[in-house]
Amino acid sequence: MSAPLFLVGFMAAGKTTVGRKLALATGRSFLDLDDLIAEKAGESVPALVARDQLKFRELEAFVLERLIVDGLDHHIVATGGGAAVFGDNLRRMRAAGFVISLGVDVKDAQARAVGGPDRPLLADDGVDALFRKRAQHYRRAHVVIETTGRSVDDVVAEVDAAERAWLRLPFANRDATLVSLGARSYPVVVHQRAVEGDLVRRYLEGASKIVVVSDRNVARYWKSTVFAELHDVELVTIEPGEASKSIAQYGELCETLVGLGLDRGSALVALGGGVVGDLTGFVAATLFRGIPVIQLPTTLVAMTDAAIGGKTAIDLAAGKNLAGAFWQPRLVACGLDMLGTLPGRERRAGFGELWKYALLDGEHLWGLVDACTAWAASDDPQAPPPALTEVIERSIAYKAAIVGRDEREVTGHRALLNLGHTVGHAIESASGLHHGEAVGLGLIAAARVSASLAGARRELEGEVVAALRRTGLPAELDRYLTDEVLGRIRVDKKRIGDKVRFIAVREVGACDPIEITVTELRRILRPVTPA
Amino acid sequence: MSAPLFLVGFMAAGKTTVGRKLALATGRSFLDLDDLIAEKAGESVPALVARDQLKFRELEAFVLERLIVDGLDHHIVATGGGAAVFGDNLRRMRAAGFVISLGVDVKDAQARAVGGPDRPLLADDGVDALFRKRAQHYRRAHVVIETTGRSVDDVVAEVDAAERAWLRLPFANRDATLVSLGARSYPVVVHQRAVEGDLVRRYLEGASKIVVVSDRNVARYWKSTVFAELHDVELVTIEPGEASKSIAQYGELCETLVGLGLDRGSALVALGGGVVGDLTGFVAATLFRGIPVIQLPTTLVAMTDAAIGGKTAIDLAAGKNLAGAFWQPRLVACGLDMLGTLPGRERRAGFGELWKYALLDGEHLWGLVDACTAWAASDDPQAPPPALTEVIERSIAYKAAIVGRDEREVTGHRALLNLGHTVGHAIESASGLHHGEAVGLGLIAAARVSASLAGARRELEGEVVAALRRTGLPAELDRYLTDEVLGRIRVDKKRIGDKVRFIAVREVGACDPIEITVTELRRILRPVTPA
Repeated sequence: MSAPLFLVGFMAAGKTTVGRKLALATGRSFLDLDDLIAEKAGESVPALVARDQLKFRELEAFVLERLIVDGLDHHIVATGGGAAVFGDNLRRMRAAGFVISLGVDVKDAQARAVGGPDRPLLADDGVDALFRKRAQHYRRAHVVIETTGRSVDDVVAEVDAAERAWLRLPFANRDATLVSLGARSYPVVVHQRAVEGDLVRRYLEGASKIVVVSDRNVARYWKSTVFAELHDVELVTIEPGEASKSIAQYGELCETLVGLGLDRGSALVALGGGVVGDLTGFVAATLFRGIPVIQLPTTLVAMTDAAIGGKTAIDLAAGKNLAGAFWQPRLVACGLDMLGTLPGRERRAGFGELWKYALLDGEHLWGLVDACTAWAASDDPQAPPPALTEVIERSIAYKAAIVGRDEREVTGHRALLNLGHTVGHAIESASGLHHGEAVGLGLIAAARVSASLAGARRELEGEVVAALRRTGLPAELDRYLTDEVLGRIRVDKKRIGDKVRFIAVREVGACDPIEITVTELRRILRPVTPA
Repeated sequence: MSAPLFLVGFMAAGKTTVGRKLALATGRSFLDLDDLIAEKAGESVPALVARDQLKFRELEAFVLERLIVDGLDHHIVATGGGAAVFGDNLRRMRAAGFVISLGVDVKDAQARAVGGPDRPLLADDGVDALFRKRAQHYRRAHVVIETTGRSVDDVVAEVDAAERAWLRLPFANRDATLVSLGARSYPVVVHQRAVEGDLVRRYLEGASKIVVVSDRNVARYWKSTVFAELHDVELVTIEPGEASKSIAQYGELCETLVGLGLDRGSALVALGGGVVGDLTGFVAATLFRGIPVIQLPTTLVAMTDAAIGGKTAIDLAAGKNLAGAFWQPRLVACGLDMLGTLPGRERRAGFGELWKYALLDGEHLWGLVDACTAWAASDDPQAPPPALTEVIERSIAYKAAIVGRDEREVTGHRALLNLGHTVGHAIESASGLHHGEAVGLGLIAAARVSASLAGARRELEGEVVAALRRTGLPAELDRYLTDEVLGRIRVDKKRIGDKVRFIAVREVGACDPIEITVTELRRILRPVTPA
């Protein structure tokens, strides 16, 4: 435990309080970056900021850099609210140690600040906007740990558990993002090679038997890589496509695995897209009442969404994902080389989810996704643009932060990830479009509904349509809003009583849940019944 | 929160520490019964005990009784280690308030006692036997909360959560036993009437839709009672029998429920035996990734075992219960009148599990079960013997304590409940015997194996055989130890690598897990291959 631990996050998130307490509990030294700056400047931080913010930021970066260069082993460092936002600081901290972002709601931060040091920004009218703007940077820490509504002891224990999970990673993979769930915390690693055997095997040590579940298409390309990297595993393949998420296929896979000699001490590896991941995850959740699973996603959708967060499922005749379980993987490892064998339509479909993350996360990610549209739209693409890796990492970070805060979709935070999905799922099951394509159309629907009900700019819908078109994705929402689609919204599992929880998008980076009736939703989506 | 809270349990379990801390945190008054006795006698408790233990016990009972009569609202009372064991004290405390037993392992109690007040009993050679003897009494508290390996804060939080769960019960049902699982704690209620609508509806408030799942046999007798008590529910019936725990039936039931309009805000009620409970529980665990379920068990096996503890499952072709989930109910309510319509064979089969609990819990329960054998064996039974209610309550209390300590069968404690099941399951799936009948035979097998490997008396096997015979249950173990049965032990999900975790019974009330190879197990069970 020699690598330093950096605490970043908004003011009043508890960085100093948590840092001091953890230092005391683990016998490490605690440093407050603001104290060091004030000492060096011979002046308080508020005074420095008030006089010349740019100069302060330069000094902050300089002091942080010196600290890192001088060596910070065994230290816990709390930083000021802006440190992770400006310049290169966050990247430097990540390279030097483990960076934890402490999350806090605006209201909670304001309540905590009462009686403490003067924090004028918190009282400012623009504090919400500032929060949203900064949040996209804080999320680029290794992990976000929420503090709202939790005791300091709870947060300290969570930080400690996250650090253990990070230290378990091979040194080469410590740039991973963590999903913070106490003792069940796990990393989401992005690496270039398709499969990294050393990494995967580290998370399967002691398993009595390991079976890789994949689909025929993926196995055709990657079977030999899997065997070369993982040794001593067996491979079971299913048919590609949503039809494999059936109860019959679930039963058949269970029987096959028991027939291969799996027992309670065995483990599964899901190698594939959302279908393989959902089905294998549900089998892992239920076979012997639960065995470990590792997710090796092979598509953009799976890497940034389906493989992370433990939602596993199969379909019923009545709708997609109606039966399933929350079952967290031990590890998610995304091999970028896998994307090279993705059919063009799958590649583009992945951008449905990426545009969703851009709307959720903020302008920075929106710009990065936009820089990848040519690659997405091309039928014969060159190597992925450099921005793609950061697009994937930021999308993962967004999802990981949400899952850590609301694992089972009870507080409403996880529901944010359903942006575009209420209508998207209905379109998907009625039209046969790919999941990501349908989600893209769902984003248009979200913008339309939000303009009516949540004060979104009217232009936003057009901007989303244009973005989807640049990516080569379907964008004719009205064509898909058939009676069947509008009818299917009714059986969506996100329905609560006669209301639907709908994720509204007020602006890029500003999304919130609202509740509306199905009737209202249909009326806004299709004001005039087509002749 | 006016009812008093009594803390009972072995010495050094932390009754005073936890009591004081909870009193401080909740603004209540704390009393230590031993302090009050010493004050009244003008002499220390150790001195009183050393001079005349019987007199001390009389004084203890007197002081406790006065406290209760004088009124203890808002008080937390810690009692000495013997208070809950002797005379009528425990029953008086239960009638006056909420009784929590703090559990502790012998080794842990000894370690905690270092440096504290002198506790000669803890250093005594007979401490293990004393522990086991007393444990059966402590388990008759409303709830057992384990303290071994946990911080005081953790235990205090768990106590607080259990009290909240207890206070949620209608006043008339506060004699229930609680399964302590933090915010997911729930009561197991035993009442005379088949269904108590007020109780059940209290735990279903706000559900958008409620469906009762039952089997045809149970529904024939109790359908009108269910509708009269529960109002506004729908009833879905399945075929009785193990065949209904299939993947096909699971899928069909899910589709039916979605077809009836269930959504994420709906709830299920399982009304039936183990098959209905396991299947309905698994559907509840997975439909919409989990909705609430209430268990209304109708058989002895379900009341004392299957309905409690959240193990849900369906069968695969390869073996029983191979797919499932841990999914705790909100409430388990056992209506004793239900037992009146139980076919004779089902009634007797229930005693397989009851004898199991007797071997696990101790001599007191063994004697109570024995007092019910005539009722079990009769083909035309009168009303159940008075002992039966306590048999059911003590069995529930044993199971609840185990589940609270080891919900997911990872620490090894829950594995104790598998006494008789390793061989029992194999016999059940090969022979078509009822579950309880097969478990009874499994108990004989456990006694036989334990005599060879765990130092059990050789006579124990004969005593178990005689007990089963008195009950009218199959007891010819050797007849059932076919090659098929011995072969089936292999795919049992409790297998870990090439070893089986086997629960040995050294004596009534003294059971422990051991690990043996399947080969060894077979050799002991059937030393000579029949010609």
